[in-house]
Amino acid sequence: MEDASHAIALTVAYAGGGFAGFARQEGPQTVQGRLEGALHVLLGRDVETVGAGRTDAGVHALGQVVSFEAADGEFDPASLGRSLTALAGPGIVVREVRRARRGFSARFDATAREYRYRIVQGGVAPLFLADLSWWVKKDLDLEAMREGARVLVGEHDFRSFCVAESAEGKRTVRRVGQIEIFEETQLGETCVVVRVAGNAFLHSMVRVIVGTLAEVGLGRRAPSWVGEALEARTRTAAGQTAPAQGLTLWSVTYPDEVWL
Amino acid sequence: MEDASHAIALTVAYAGGGFAGFARQEGPQTVQGRLEGALHVLLGRDVETVGAGRTDAGVHALGQVVSFEAADGEFDPASLGRSLTALAGPGIVVREVRRARRGFSARFDATAREYRYRIVQGGVAPLFLADLSWWVKKDLDLEAMREGARVLVGEHDFRSFCVAESAEGKRTVRRVGQIEIFEETQLGETCVVVRVAGNAFLHSMVRVIVGTLAEVGLGRRAPSWVGEALEARTRTAAGQTAPAQGLTLWSVTYPDEVWL
Repeated sequence: MEDASHAIALTVAYAGGGFAGFARQEGPQTVQGRLEGALHVLLGRDVETVGAGRTDAGVHALGQVVSFEAADGEFDPASLGRSLTALAGPGIVVREVRRARRGFSARFDATAREYRYRIVQGGVAPLFLADLSWWVKKDLDLEAMREGARVLVGEHDFRSFCVAESAEGKRTVRRVGQIEIFEETQLGETCVVVRVAGNAFLHSMVRVIVGTLAEVGLGRRAPSWVGEALEARTRTAAGQTAPAQGLTLWSVTYPDEVWL
Repeated sequence: MEDASHAIALTVAYAGGGFAGFARQEGPQTVQGRLEGALHVLLGRDVETVGAGRTDAGVHALGQVVSFEAADGEFDPASLGRSLTALAGPGIVVREVRRARRGFSARFDATAREYRYRIVQGGVAPLFLADLSWWVKKDLDLEAMREGARVLVGEHDFRSFCVAESAEGKRTVRRVGQIEIFEETQLGETCVVVRVAGNAFLHSMVRVIVGTLAEVGLGRRAPSWVGEALEARTRTAAGQTAPAQGLTLWSVTYPDEVWL
């Protein structure tokens, strides 16, 4: 990298179904692998990228942010997005290209992340939302889910709400800013959205939160059970991990001062 | 068919990409063929269905209506929808099953049909809407499109706005009730929707209307050109046929008295 450099922040959308997750791996198709491959072709050099969130296989993104360092004048940011979208292949779209100050990290500079999880309830299968939602086949009590969710908002030890192995020996305190649960119509189909915003998330944390709230919504557990699961600080106390295909990394927030 | 019979009206959604259109054909996969195959398995007899609209290959439906005659007590309407959805296979969902009076025809009893066409404008490719929209890659002047659309509303000879061969020797007067053009956000992506409602439509009529209005929206033609195309009464006077994948048969309306 030359002396005069800055960072680039790509806002990237992808359909999770075609990928073994965001993070680069040897072998399987990943979003990061495809982006870095496209960058290699476009810039003629190896490019190491950093993603704001390491989404799992099957998880979608509307606003994943991916950063890398670039030499000043190395390329035209305006045309980079289109070229990258074309080269990265199906299932990945670069929506925006922004210039950030040198050393910017999409991961470490993020101040907030928002995820949205779509559930289709009731007896009618989703069609257009089939690959973008979890179909629970029964009706949900949204008010009970909202009541159960309340205890999760704030700073807590979310050890019960993440992949057990990922939490071993690690700090598992995170701050959840908001959990909103509402119905909306997308493509003519009605779905329930669980919107979770916070500073950072543990591995599968949003999916375990949704799986736990679904137990409450389906009437199998009382809303107060969510608080008990939280206090237990062990993965088995909470509900199932909701399927990946319902989850979308919606947006990532950065301080204004990172942008050039 | 036994003496005591009634009609069944299925409300059917499908993703057009996997089918050679709605109407039954020898050989290629069609929505009607798959539904009739599933009905054959479920009811143990040949079932001839009638669809409200013969959508082309690639065109989607949220509210296609499909009718057939059934003997009273032949099956439980409540469970038929789920069984049909399961048997019809991927890409087809039966959303509703209603009982209608004997002799009801989804095609001939329809009093109104509504289609919606999605366009994604601008430099960012659609991702979640990729198979459900037409990406025009430039910005559209929606006000000019609305002005151009005005002349199409009402009863007119739409000979310029349908597949030429389909119109030969046929009456091509139709009544368009409304054309609305608005922006909306679906799955986080912004699109322009052209909503066209009318009593009945000629072959590819909505797609030619959209292709013509797009010429105006892209600034290649003046809004007044739409009226000239209408008056010319010949297919070559209007714009291109917009791609099938942007179009969805949204809903079909029947008089209240058809329902049992």
